[in-house]
Amino acid sequence: MPERIVLYTAKICPYAQRAEIALAEAKAPHIQYQIDLQNKPEWYAPKVNPASKVPAIAYGGPDVPPDQPSPESVKLAESLILVEFIADLFPDSGILPADPVLRAKARFFVDGVSTKFVPAWQAYLQGKSPVEDFYKAVEYLQGLLPEQGYAIGRYSLADIALTPFLARARVALLNDFGGYPQGEGPKVIESLTSESGRFARIGKYFNDLLARESFKATFDEGYITERYKARFADLRK
Amino acid sequence: MPERIVLYTAKICPYAQRAEIALAEAKAPHIQYQIDLQNKPEWYAPKVNPASKVPAIAYGGPDVPPDQPSPESVKLAESLILVEFIADLFPDSGILPADPVLRAKARFFVDGVSTKFVPAWQAYLQGKSPVEDFYKAVEYLQGLLPEQGYAIGRYSLADIALTPFLARARVALLNDFGGYPQGEGPKVIESLTSESGRFARIGKYFNDLLARESFKATFDEGYITERYKARFADLRK
Ligand SMILES: N[C@@H](CCC(=O)N[C@@H](CS)C(=O)NCC(=O)O)C(=O)O
Ligand SMILES: N[C@@H](CCC(=O)N[C@@H](CS)C(=O)NCC(=O)O)C(=O)O
Repeated sequence: MPERIVLYTAKICPYAQRAEIALAEAKAPHIQYQIDLQNKPEWYAPKVNPASKVPAIAYGGPDVPPDQPSPESVKLAESLILVEFIADLFPDSGILPADPVLRAKARFFVDGVSTKFVPAWQAYLQGKSPVEDFYKAVEYLQGLLPEQGYAIGRYSLADIALTPFLARARVALLNDFGGYPQGEGPKVIESLTSESGRFARIGKYFNDLLARESFKATFDEGYITERYKARFADLRK
Repeated sequence: MPERIVLYTAKICPYAQRAEIALAEAKAPHIQYQIDLQNKPEWYAPKVNPASKVPAIAYGGPDVPPDQPSPESVKLAESLILVEFIADLFPDSGILPADPVLRAKARFFVDGVSTKFVPAWQAYLQGKSPVEDFYKAVEYLQGLLPEQGYAIGRYSLADIALTPFLARARVALLNDFGGYPQGEGPKVIESLTSESGRFARIGKYFNDLLARESFKATFDEGYITERYKARFADLRK
């Protein structure tokens, strides 16, 4: 029987949303506490996460208010480790299947998200590399997909790792926010989600990810759009 | 009952040694095949690992010679994923304990190895940063250690991730190979393994890691010394 879970999170943060999606997939009772990253509470680093980042989990311990964390709870950090932790606590969630080969395939897909998709997206967003470099990273992930379904068939850790980054990329592209050539954003997201042509397979997959309940319940598109506008709309100037 | 395991490895490679140590800890029957990284067989990338790196595992499939890999085996890569895979196949190996909190702590230590220890060591070896930066990374890991025992008490994934890098650093430092100031290497390894002073706790831990059977059985110190001499002894010139 899992103990008390307090998730320290922030709506803006794709890493934090991974933990939120995992908790939603597991239907795990938990408390969420929003950390204002622009103005972090002074207790957060010393009492919850020395790295001063979200997400973090306080696990177990007494029933204290989240802004008065107890030294008796275990403090855990790093989004992918938190998702694995939630998978371990809730094996029936399916976040990681029991089969060792499928678990390895899920983790290998995550490695591609971390080492290929995210850096290529960030470089493109900043206007530091051409769209073709981003497309190559997308094609790499496409090459890992099975014929149908999510990254390993059933929804898993692999999909949770990617979805928050995909969703934020979609917002930036739709609104043409970023340092890439003006007018390119909407065309890029159109081609990446079209379900025909070069990205047909992954376009279907992307649409499936964005339709998932656990994603929709943890994503505030209006909020992300406003924040991304402030952060990325002027990159081109 | 696990299926057939073929490990593609190379004695020089710290990542590959992680998989070798994990298989040794699990006492897992398996076949090892050495890949010459200077002269890779042409079948290796297309038939085993498209990234053309070691380590990789061919899992299951028919009983073919390792240099004629069957399309029927599953091919897996990435050292940390392979260690998790071996832990999943052999839960009694203790590579990962059953407790979700301890599993998260092991993975968090691994994250520190990957994002702090290894980059700081490589920068120091190349003569690109002062020894104090490397010491800071070592101190960070020291701060994660429990009062006694290995990284999470019992020997685990956390220790497996670090040991091959520690052992290679020790060889370079003992022999003063690298781009750091001449004569510094032997003093650095002495202070890191002295069990008193600034690194007392982690010094004990380092010595425990280097005394572990699964490490010793998978490390060829003479070979690494020769190869490191050729690669790093001239960096200072
Ligand atoms: N590797 C970490 C990254 C987490 C991270 O970078 N979070 C950001 C927000 S998206 C953060 O909290 N940054 C600290 C800050 O903004 O001060 C993870 O996967 O959890
Ligand atoms: N991230 C990989 C890194 C593996 C790696 O870089 N292996 C090196 C040898 S230490 C390799 O095979 N490099 C390819 C080459 O030398 O051509 C892992 O953890 O397995």
